[in-house]
Amino acid sequence: MASPELSRWMQASGQHIEQVLDRLLPSVAEAPGTLQQAMRYAVLQGGKRMRPLLVYAAGELGQAPQAALDHAAAAVELIHAYSLVHDDLPCMDNDVLRRGKPTVHVQFGEAMALLAGDALQTLAFEVLTIAPEMKPSAQLQMLHVLAQASGAAGMAGGQAIDLDSVGVALPQAQLEQMHARKTGALLAASIRLGVLCGTELSPQQQVGLAVFARHLGLAFQVADDVLDVAADTATLGKTAGKDAQANKPTYVALMGLEEARAYAAHLLQQALQALECFGPEAERLRQLAGYSVHRTY
Amino acid sequence: MASPELSRWMQASGQHIEQVLDRLLPSVAEAPGTLQQAMRYAVLQGGKRMRPLLVYAAGELGQAPQAALDHAAAAVELIHAYSLVHDDLPCMDNDVLRRGKPTVHVQFGEAMALLAGDALQTLAFEVLTIAPEMKPSAQLQMLHVLAQASGAAGMAGGQAIDLDSVGVALPQAQLEQMHARKTGALLAASIRLGVLCGTELSPQQQVGLAVFARHLGLAFQVADDVLDVAADTATLGKTAGKDAQANKPTYVALMGLEEARAYAAHLLQQALQALECFGPEAERLRQLAGYSVHRTY
Repeated sequence: MASPELSRWMQASGQHIEQVLDRLLPSVAEAPGTLQQAMRYAVLQGGKRMRPLLVYAAGELGQAPQAALDHAAAAVELIHAYSLVHDDLPCMDNDVLRRGKPTVHVQFGEAMALLAGDALQTLAFEVLTIAPEMKPSAQLQMLHVLAQASGAAGMAGGQAIDLDSVGVALPQAQLEQMHARKTGALLAASIRLGVLCGTELSPQQQVGLAVFARHLGLAFQVADDVLDVAADTATLGKTAGKDAQANKPTYVALMGLEEARAYAAHLLQQALQALECFGPEAERLRQLAGYSVHRTY
Repeated sequence: MASPELSRWMQASGQHIEQVLDRLLPSVAEAPGTLQQAMRYAVLQGGKRMRPLLVYAAGELGQAPQAALDHAAAAVELIHAYSLVHDDLPCMDNDVLRRGKPTVHVQFGEAMALLAGDALQTLAFEVLTIAPEMKPSAQLQMLHVLAQASGAAGMAGGQAIDLDSVGVALPQAQLEQMHARKTGALLAASIRLGVLCGTELSPQQQVGLAVFARHLGLAFQVADDVLDVAADTATLGKTAGKDAQANKPTYVALMGLEEARAYAAHLLQQALQALECFGPEAERLRQLAGYSVHRTY
C-alpha cells in the first residue's frame, strides 16, 4: 500500500524512534527493576509508531531539528503506550494479547501494570521538559498541547464516554465526538508537536493543518473499526472482532462495512484538501495520511 | 499541637487551595460528566493538604507571587490525589475507605477510578503549563521537578519497591530508600516548587533546603507508620492498622513503637537544623515541619 520510498522512510523512522525510546526509558539496572522492565516491555518492539511518524512528517513542514522531534515523538508514543497498558487491564478491556505478545498485566501482574502505565505517562511529560534545541516557551506549548490531548478534555475523556456507551447505540455525532477525543486528540497533538519543534507556520497553514488533523484522526478511527471486522487476530497482533463482541459502538455497526470503508476514503480526501496551502514539504504527511487510512493492519 | 497562629494559617490556606482546586478541576457539566465527577470526588473536601501547605510555606522564602504558588500547590495535590486513587484500587491496596468516604472505585467503579487517576495526573502537569506570573524557564523547571518526583525515579518507583516488598523484612537502608521515593520525593518537590515560584535562593540556602526536605520527608513517613498503629480508623479517616495487616514493612515493625517515635523526633531536629541559614522568612516552614511530625492524624 505504501510507496517504496514511504516504506523505506517508515522503516528507518521506526528503527530510529525505537533507539530514542530505548535511550529515554529507564534502565532495568535501576531499582526497583521490575517497574522499569514492565515499562520497557510496554513500549519497545511494538506497534506501527503512527504517532511518532506523524511528528516526524509534520516536523518537515517547519524544518524542525531532529533532536527536538525525537523528544516530541517519544512523548506521544509514551502517552499512547500508557493508555494501551491501562486499557488492557481487567477492569477495562481485559485483553490478554497486544502486538502479538501477552499484555503487560498478564506478564507482570495487574498492580505492576498499573504502575508502569502511570510512570509512562509521567515520563512522557518529563521527556518534553528536556527536549533539546528548543525555546522554553515552545517547550511549554508542547507540554500544554500534550496535556490537553491526554486528559479529561482529550483521550481520558473519550475513554470515559466509551465506558459509559457500552451497549448503547450512539448516534454518529456522539460517536465522532467520542473518537475525536479518544484517538483523534493524540493524533492531532502529534502533528502539532512536530510543528512546534520547527519554524512558525502562517495562520492559514495552521488552520489548514488543524482541519487536516481532525479529518485524519477520524479517518484513522473508521479504518480501525473496519480492520477490527475485516482482519484476523494474527494480522492485527491483537484480538480481532473484540469491539463487536464487547458490544461497543463502531462505524461498521453504525453504517455497515462497505459504507464505513467509503467514509474513511471520503475523510481522507477532505484531510488532503486541507493541505493544499502547503507545497512539497507536506508530501510526506500526505503519503503517511494515505497509508494510515488504507493500511491492512 | 499546632500554635493558634499556625492553625489559623493552615485553615485559611486549606480553604484557599480548595477554591483553587475547585476552579482548576473540570466542571461536571463537561461531557462525559462521570469522569469529571470522579476527579472532583477524589480531590475536593479531603486530606490535610500537607503538600500544598509546604508549597505555600516554601514560597515565603522567596516572596513568590500567590497566583504562581496556587498552580504549584494544585499540581502537587493533584499528583497526590491521583496516587491515592490508584493505590486504593483492588489490584493494589484494595481499600474501601479514604478521608472518611468510600474510595473512588467503590463510588464510581474500577474502570472510572482508573481513568480519573490517569486524568488527575495529566491535569497536574497541565496546571503547571498555565501557571501565571512565571518565566517559561522556571515553569519548565517546575514541570521537570514534578515529573522526576512522580515517575519511576520517584513516587511510582517507590510504590513498585513497596509492591515487591510485601512479606519481606527490609533492612532500614532499603526501607528508607523506598519511602524516600514513595512519599519523600513528592514532599521534597512541593518545597522545591514553592521556591521555584519566587526569587532565586543562594546556593547555601538551596543545599540547606534540600537537606531539610529529605529529613522532613522521612520524618513524615515514620510519623505515618506510628499513626497507623497508634490511631484508630475514625481519627485517621482511613483504615487503621492496614500496613501491619498487609504485612508491609514499617518503621514500627522495624524498631518498635517508642523507638519509631523517637526516630521521628530526631529526624525533625536534623531537618530544622538545616534551616539555620534562613531567617524569620522560614518560620512558617519550621512550624509546619514540627506540626507534620507531631500530628495526631
